[in-house]
Amino acid sequence: MSLVDDKPGLSRAPAAQTDIDAMMLEIGRRARAAAAVLALASSEQKDKALHAAAAALRADTPAILAANAKDIAAAREKGLRDSLVDRLLLDAGRLEGIAAGLEVVAGLPDPVGATMAAWERPNGLKFERRRVPLGVIGIIYESRPNVTADAGSLCLKAGNAAILRGGSESYHSSTAIVAALHKGLREAGLPEDAIQSVPTTDRAAVGKLLTMPQYVDVIVPRGGRSLIERVQNESRVPVFAHLDGLCHVYLDAGADRDKAVAIAVNAKMRRTSVCGAAETLLVDRAVAAELLPPVAEALRAAGCILRGDAAARAIATGMDPASEADWDTEYLDAILSVAVVDGVAGAIEHINRHGSHHTDSIVTEDAAAAERFLSEVDSAIVLHNASTQFADGGEFGFGAEIGISTGRMHARGPVGAEQLTSFKYLVRGTGQTRP
Amino acid sequence: MSLVDDKPGLSRAPAAQTDIDAMMLEIGRRARAAAAVLALASSEQKDKALHAAAAALRADTPAILAANAKDIAAAREKGLRDSLVDRLLLDAGRLEGIAAGLEVVAGLPDPVGATMAAWERPNGLKFERRRVPLGVIGIIYESRPNVTADAGSLCLKAGNAAILRGGSESYHSSTAIVAALHKGLREAGLPEDAIQSVPTTDRAAVGKLLTMPQYVDVIVPRGGRSLIERVQNESRVPVFAHLDGLCHVYLDAGADRDKAVAIAVNAKMRRTSVCGAAETLLVDRAVAAELLPPVAEALRAAGCILRGDAAARAIATGMDPASEADWDTEYLDAILSVAVVDGVAGAIEHINRHGSHHTDSIVTEDAAAAERFLSEVDSAIVLHNASTQFADGGEFGFGAEIGISTGRMHARGPVGAEQLTSFKYLVRGTGQTRP
Repeated sequence: MSLVDDKPGLSRAPAAQTDIDAMMLEIGRRARAAAAVLALASSEQKDKALHAAAAALRADTPAILAANAKDIAAAREKGLRDSLVDRLLLDAGRLEGIAAGLEVVAGLPDPVGATMAAWERPNGLKFERRRVPLGVIGIIYESRPNVTADAGSLCLKAGNAAILRGGSESYHSSTAIVAALHKGLREAGLPEDAIQSVPTTDRAAVGKLLTMPQYVDVIVPRGGRSLIERVQNESRVPVFAHLDGLCHVYLDAGADRDKAVAIAVNAKMRRTSVCGAAETLLVDRAVAAELLPPVAEALRAAGCILRGDAAARAIATGMDPASEADWDTEYLDAILSVAVVDGVAGAIEHINRHGSHHTDSIVTEDAAAAERFLSEVDSAIVLHNASTQFADGGEFGFGAEIGISTGRMHARGPVGAEQLTSFKYLVRGTGQTRP
Repeated sequence: MSLVDDKPGLSRAPAAQTDIDAMMLEIGRRARAAAAVLALASSEQKDKALHAAAAALRADTPAILAANAKDIAAAREKGLRDSLVDRLLLDAGRLEGIAAGLEVVAGLPDPVGATMAAWERPNGLKFERRRVPLGVIGIIYESRPNVTADAGSLCLKAGNAAILRGGSESYHSSTAIVAALHKGLREAGLPEDAIQSVPTTDRAAVGKLLTMPQYVDVIVPRGGRSLIERVQNESRVPVFAHLDGLCHVYLDAGADRDKAVAIAVNAKMRRTSVCGAAETLLVDRAVAAELLPPVAEALRAAGCILRGDAAARAIATGMDPASEADWDTEYLDAILSVAVVDGVAGAIEHINRHGSHHTDSIVTEDAAAAERFLSEVDSAIVLHNASTQFADGGEFGFGAEIGISTGRMHARGPVGAEQLTSFKYLVRGTGQTRP
């Protein structure tokens, strides 16, 4: 996906860019105004909007599926791969899943208004740190139409206005879903501008969305690497982005054999295309001879191709040789690189050098080794005796997530409603002046 | 301050830029390596470094004052204004204040390692959200040499590596202070690279510092508006920035007269050059006739020039007329704009339109009006019956601050040690795989 035209002069007259800019500025202005209303909306009002939107999605199922059929027809005409067409596809079951997702978000606790901390100073001033919405959130995503409802509902729950810019492939589907969300907002007496979708597939709109810091507080890109890299490069607004999920499973000397097999297979093979899928297996040299053969066998039986370093290949059969590049490769496929390392220190060193600071797991019954790994591996999510595929907001109990952030600022790991908030300080005095 | 040369081709051969870039990349690489060590340093080790640095500052007083004398001589030669020369000046008393500041930071609780939240899921997975350092922090500041120690020590306390780029005016002073900080780090067995200062006054170094996201996690600019705007425009790294402090005091119908006078005078006149100084006084129309004359009189007696709207001038004498631009002006001087507004709703509307989302105060004995103001004014700090000049990390009990952020992301309001941290999720299982 190209966010801005490479040759705007060739593809579009300058007047069109001006029109797009004006349209985006107007969307931004309306979002900012809606955010001010949402920031003061009650939990009941926001949840009412979400329940009403779920009802509208169900009632509008025929219209939404008809809109989706247009997107699907266009996608087939463009010759999109079947896997991409499947991402676009809605049916009654998927739509019910989207509606149920809105109800899940409605059932989450409202993060806004919570007192995060309170203290008093010797001069009698009473301080409260209170959670407030972030403001306006721009979401840029590719084909999946469910993101429209997932992202819009989470933003609403946290009192933020959302500007949604879906991929051109899902344009009709997303527009129909947004219409249902608007019905929910209207029923709850909230402004429709709380959830706006950009009414054009022109890529210049994305360029403008990224450069309106006066109207947009944060950008969340959802999609492939090229989309996210372009957003990070062009944005003048903070970005919650997830770049790579180069996750590791480390089998320690103290590993239980059954857990090692189960976790390695699940972390790699449950779903290979998710960001929490393991890409590299590390095995402690002390137990590699015992542990690696059964683990490798189970992985191969599950359909996984293994690429090992020399030490791994000397122990287990049927591995291709791994090159240096393999340690830095996110396959998102049924391929796993395998290295033998020297204990937990070697594992930590390998992960901090080659990983993407996303999700990494240690398998061991040795509590000290586990705590060292959890402390010293510099990743958003570190696990002990559990699969890396738990890297998911739902599995964390967040109810829903707008993405997983590999950055360290503000949000890290799964981004749920609470991570879409900011805070303010309320200071209560009795006439204090500063000496 | 210009962060990058406007005409690099004219002022410097390309080779020099390449040298600067290489030097900055090396500083970044070393900072990243030091950050990995600091992240695992104990509280005792970090505090030992801070105490030893304070001792070194005291022991090195003659050398630091000699270095400062060079900066002062150069500043006078360049014809710097007396007020700017005073900002640069160190004497034994100021240096003792800097050393004592290091000890205050040492005495603060260590934010790193704290469990921020913990919960268990139905599948038995135990989740912990633990505070960890942010990583590498770049601080770009102007003339005050004390920032060198303040910023370096807060970064160290929170386990971060700091890259300091002070103004060219304080170059010798800052270098001498960093030498003392290095002594402290050495005594505690921590890497000197934990606090590096950029060993050149070449402005190209700043441009590079802003564009090394692989080595720098956040930039904190400290200085005037032009510095901060340039950092915000050029940075490819998140910025904790404080742009304007357009603060308001609102005198409500329920205000106590004595508190109104005391808070208005203190908020404006205690120090007019600080970001928490009030710039606009709002008075409820219902009580303006009673309240405004004594408040205006007290302000004038304290040396303040008043610029009022028509309603204010009809009530109180001796005011200049305010123009529309006055409502949007941060004077940082003994000037105050005065407007009559319709109750707390009118005050909130004025502040959210004209303010800078920094610090605003209501004076009232009416609890409902106060709570409405605190909730609905969209500022980092909102006060009830207290002076806006409390907008300061020390007054909040943070011990020290690296600045005040007017952004909404990650840090908002005073940025103390806790705001210089990130977090990670530790997940403890017993062999769980994801269904």
